[in-house]
Amino acid sequence: MTDLPARVTLHEEGPREGFQFEKTLFPLAERVRFVDMLSATGLSRIQVASFVSPRMVPQMADSAELFGAIAKPSGVRHTSLWLSEKGYRQAAETPGVDLSGLILLYASDAFSLRNNGCSADEMRRRQEDWIAMYDADGVDIEAIYIMTAFGCNLQGDIPFAALDANLDWIASRFAGRALPVIYLADTVGWAVPTSVTTRISYVRNRFPDARIGLHLHDTRGAAMASFLVALQLGVTQFDGSVAGLGGCPFAGHGHGAAAGNICTEDMVFMAHEMGIETGVDLEALIEAARMAEALIGRPLPGRVMHGGSLASYRNSTPTIGKRT
Amino acid sequence: MTDLPARVTLHEEGPREGFQFEKTLFPLAERVRFVDMLSATGLSRIQVASFVSPRMVPQMADSAELFGAIAKPSGVRHTSLWLSEKGYRQAAETPGVDLSGLILLYASDAFSLRNNGCSADEMRRRQEDWIAMYDADGVDIEAIYIMTAFGCNLQGDIPFAALDANLDWIASRFAGRALPVIYLADTVGWAVPTSVTTRISYVRNRFPDARIGLHLHDTRGAAMASFLVALQLGVTQFDGSVAGLGGCPFAGHGHGAAAGNICTEDMVFMAHEMGIETGVDLEALIEAARMAEALIGRPLPGRVMHGGSLASYRNSTPTIGKRT
Repeated sequence: MTDLPARVTLHEEGPREGFQFEKTLFPLAERVRFVDMLSATGLSRIQVASFVSPRMVPQMADSAELFGAIAKPSGVRHTSLWLSEKGYRQAAETPGVDLSGLILLYASDAFSLRNNGCSADEMRRRQEDWIAMYDADGVDIEAIYIMTAFGCNLQGDIPFAALDANLDWIASRFAGRALPVIYLADTVGWAVPTSVTTRISYVRNRFPDARIGLHLHDTRGAAMASFLVALQLGVTQFDGSVAGLGGCPFAGHGHGAAAGNICTEDMVFMAHEMGIETGVDLEALIEAARMAEALIGRPLPGRVMHGGSLASYRNSTPTIGKRT
Repeated sequence: MTDLPARVTLHEEGPREGFQFEKTLFPLAERVRFVDMLSATGLSRIQVASFVSPRMVPQMADSAELFGAIAKPSGVRHTSLWLSEKGYRQAAETPGVDLSGLILLYASDAFSLRNNGCSADEMRRRQEDWIAMYDADGVDIEAIYIMTAFGCNLQGDIPFAALDANLDWIASRFAGRALPVIYLADTVGWAVPTSVTTRISYVRNRFPDARIGLHLHDTRGAAMASFLVALQLGVTQFDGSVAGLGGCPFAGHGHGAAAGNICTEDMVFMAHEMGIETGVDLEALIEAARMAEALIGRPLPGRVMHGGSLASYRNSTPTIGKRT
């Protein structure tokens, strides 16, 4: 494992992922405090909220207010998500939003139909309008997400060859312009290390110079192993949610809600222990995770936030020698 | 990742790990039902209970009764743990116990002092008596555990060179006899993939033909990644606890108890998805995990038990092609 990257970049999505499916509406002041804590951890990019239908996602109805109320330290970008041109327009008009152009593609027709009311093919066609919209505003396109790239609860297995239509589209639409980071998104938690490996290789085979990112969910426990195999393959861009926010509180079986996005501070812990820099203060991020858990009011899936970091054990005791 | 093993063997420790630290005493009948469910999953080796001081661990006071009450399907071994010769004698006299000789070594003096009341060196000396005891009874020595092999909450970092005293002892005491599986035990959750890699290489460098096992705890979220890197290195012996039982219910911070042993059914899920056989029926193991959670009465750390397996999605939908 000598070819591990020296540094990875983590994109924090907890503030959006964590609250959008909750039945409770949490006070704006508490969410402001949460984002402010995250903004002080060293994270360089935080997805604060989405601009989506307030009828469908009432938890995001006050996104503009949230952006207006949070502190804006230098070196931190506060991004947002949208699923339509209308959502993008709202984001573009909201002070405090750091616009970052994104393209949304789907490997599963069924999932696109449910999320967007149109086929994956029609969604690709709509993205041509999005490209024009970003170009008109001079907004850089930073990321292309291929959603349900590993499997789909509605459609079943997604073999890697099912990525072809999206890769063809990318090759055609981004010929002659800067290729954004291509994010393979495990939208519903089907990825395992072997499927991560085959898909990364498949995309690299098509786009040898592509920067690849991973958006993982830990629904079935394989996310940290998938993170590891991606590190071994030199991937350096990862989405995550502090405390593992983003699980579905009413979908889980039994006492526990289904786990959400891969947990940011667990990635930070493991990366640091492996000698990989993140730029993030682990202790500060753990404090933010605990604040989120207190706010949500039920156990969240993060591990190191409950087990505690190793700093206290190291600081209080003499070590026998250099750790390796 | 073409050198992954075709099959791994999982040693289930949930019945012992899961109940020993609980403040509640759970009804014998419920624990019998739990072990019986596990015995029907295809697991080949289940550590049912320990023979330890009933004053120190009152939850294990009825271990003999438990062994007497559980069903005994063919192909399943019901093992037990002991920490002293007295405990071993009790196990040896208990009908239903499948005796499996074990040797306990410590990389951390401080941890050995707390667990055994003696230094790691004195514990090694005591193991010579254990070897004589097993030999006298004709009991095969199946496993050598090196506890706190990755780090220690009392002593701090444990560099891999701190394994030397134990490896020297093994080389000397097992010269000319069958070498048991050497288990590297991450007793308190310090292991990460890099430290797993260095330690496996270090042991193999000393004992090129050694079979190596891993006993992992998911205290800080890195256990499944450590499992993966061990698979990549060809390790095939893993301890685990169904539902991730074994966490410390009163040590965790906030709403969640600290995570316990690596979760058996999460390992089974990932192994199967990667084409690695376990011999275990995932759905039956998930049912046992849910039974344990209902019995314990709080959320347990397992992921796939809450997220659900992929079987229902696959059975209800046509797949687009072969999954890879």
